Amino acid sequence: MVSAAETLAGSRAAVARAITLVESTRPDDRAAARALLAELAPYTGRAHRIGISGVPGAGKSTLIDRLGTMIADGGRRVAVLTVDPSSERTGGSLLGDATRMSGLAAHPDAFVRSSPSAGRLGGVAPGTRAAIAVVEAAGYDIVLIETVGVGQSETAVAALVDTFVLVAAIGTGDELQGVKMGVLELVDVIAVNKVDGERVAAGKATARDLSTAMRLVSRGGDRTTPAVLTCSARDGSGVAELWEHITDRFAERSAAGEVRRRRREQDVAGMWSTARTAVLAGFDADARVATLAEEFISAVDAGTTTATEAGERLAAAFRDAGRHPVHKTSTSVQTSTMYLVVE
Amino acid sequence: MVSAAETLAGSRAAVARAITLVESTRPDDRAAARALLAELAPYTGRAHRIGISGVPGAGKSTLIDRLGTMIADGGRRVAVLTVDPSSERTGGSLLGDATRMSGLAAHPDAFVRSSPSAGRLGGVAPGTRAAIAVVEAAGYDIVLIETVGVGQSETAVAALVDTFVLVAAIGTGDELQGVKMGVLELVDVIAVNKVDGERVAAGKATARDLSTAMRLVSRGGDRTTPAVLTCSARDGSGVAELWEHITDRFAERSAAGEVRRRRREQDVAGMWSTARTAVLAGFDADARVATLAEEFISAVDAGTTTATEAGERLAAAFRDAGRHPVHKTSTSVQTSTMYLVVE
Repeated sequence: MVSAAETLAGSRAAVARAITLVESTRPDDRAAARALLAELAPYTGRAHRIGISGVPGAGKSTLIDRLGTMIADGGRRVAVLTVDPSSERTGGSLLGDATRMSGLAAHPDAFVRSSPSAGRLGGVAPGTRAAIAVVEAAGYDIVLIETVGVGQSETAVAALVDTFVLVAAIGTGDELQGVKMGVLELVDVIAVNKVDGERVAAGKATARDLSTAMRLVSRGGDRTTPAVLTCSARDGSGVAELWEHITDRFAERSAAGEVRRRRREQDVAGMWSTARTAVLAGFDADARVATLAEEFISAVDAGTTTATEAGERLAAAFRDAGRHPVHKTSTSVQTSTMYLVVE
Repeated sequence: MVSAAETLAGSRAAVARAITLVESTRPDDRAAARALLAELAPYTGRAHRIGISGVPGAGKSTLIDRLGTMIADGGRRVAVLTVDPSSERTGGSLLGDATRMSGLAAHPDAFVRSSPSAGRLGGVAPGTRAAIAVVEAAGYDIVLIETVGVGQSETAVAALVDTFVLVAAIGTGDELQGVKMGVLELVDVIAVNKVDGERVAAGKATARDLSTAMRLVSRGGDRTTPAVLTCSARDGSGVAELWEHITDRFAERSAAGEVRRRRREQDVAGMWSTARTAVLAGFDADARVATLAEEFISAVDAGTTTATEAGERLAAAFRDAGRHPVHKTSTSVQTSTMYLVVE
């Protein structure tokens, strides 16, 4: 266990233990995790939260290593949280973040941490939100959240950060991104990486193509078209300019009250999304629903019922099951059963 | 009321009445609607289902009018279903589809129908799925499903069709689409419309840009990059080629068993999505949840709880409410103090 005071004091060991606790899904850790987060809450919210995404091979880790070291050398404390939604981690990840970001991990003002979130109920958001709270309370000024997956985890991370950066690769022809289009909609800045040596011309062409592509489609609300910048994490060119762009835009938006407004929206949306995810997790874990679903799929195949009818009946079965759910793993859930007493 | 026999006989009046019934959300219509759909089920599944989407002004209605007339003149029966998710319909829609698609609506082998789906619980999918079943049972060979909105309804319609066509406009600069990127991911064919007269060069440039943009990002699964074709619904050029492309691809995929496989996946996904939507609708309508949410948002603002904690407690409150939900319309809300007991 780790106390709030130890976490606030900010030693790397204490921060690491606090994150382990708040990310734990073990029922007997949850109460302690909640208590810790409640104590830390007044000290959170002070960092600039930056999501960094991109397909494997785009050079995210190298760029974060370079960027993080630059930030820490400049006198600000930087925390890197890696969200890895894959169930089977790749060789690269297994090497550990100390290897992937060796320069940064050794820096006294940096904290690097990977969170495999495989199979976590509720997706990556709750654990990552809690980890952000811990490093903010521990006094880190900049939080870089790296997402390794491409898809759901990006959406979740975009909903937690102030700035969302996409790292794009070059050199693999025009099918270069492998990024889902829905993810592009969330992006504030695109950094075309590995633009060095003989790849400068190709990199600039990639940046132009991406710039055109980003203008072709609309973005939600009043968000502006993302800037597309080039850089090289290897030789460092363009990295300072990238950072300047990110911090300048953040400063403008902070001054305009946009950052605060967006965070409040994120909090409210996060509450509802956590709640809905938990409600649906209960539905998914219901043994009666699973049994009925098998029957209904056969009936839909046979043409004796429709998908809509089957779905409505599944929902009705769940609703009518009431207070005493039959879970798929009925022997292990009693410890986490919660009763709400209404006075 | 309308019988299954009348619907199968396929008169436009009977089909119209059947759709009104199956789309009805009135509780006293639901039993009759279910019975009708069950009787029709063995006669469904025989049409080529085509979704047609695009921003207002792209010329969807004119293109559908032209395309539908061509199909019907060719001896196949065509049904057009328009999904309009907007709560306040636009002037154009209020004119009615007979006005918007005057040529097609008068054709003896065509059926044109608009379904305002404003505020429908469960989104557009259940009603549209039911309407497709009706027109298939009534012997229509081609079902064109037009979506007016840009966003959720496109996703829903894409999950119901065999082919998804995006109609793109030209001539409004490079911010030409207004289409959400996530929608582009669902598209099988892009038809750049209004490519006629002085707009031929601009149209071809738009098609090239879109083609590049579509190759830039990946698509889910093994789906191929969509074709980008140009046409003019006004003078008819390119419309036959567009239709040939759509039917050729459909024939290939049918022969390979892909259409059947995709439809089964759509049925199973539709069942789960209907069920989850209904479960969440119950959550959203719960008065205790609404009251608690207000308290929790204040607490999150004040920093005395976290968004995650608040969300988990909302879900627990809903789950434990059990069989007798208190709906928002009820006056018997008595939740003021709640204790959360963890065993």
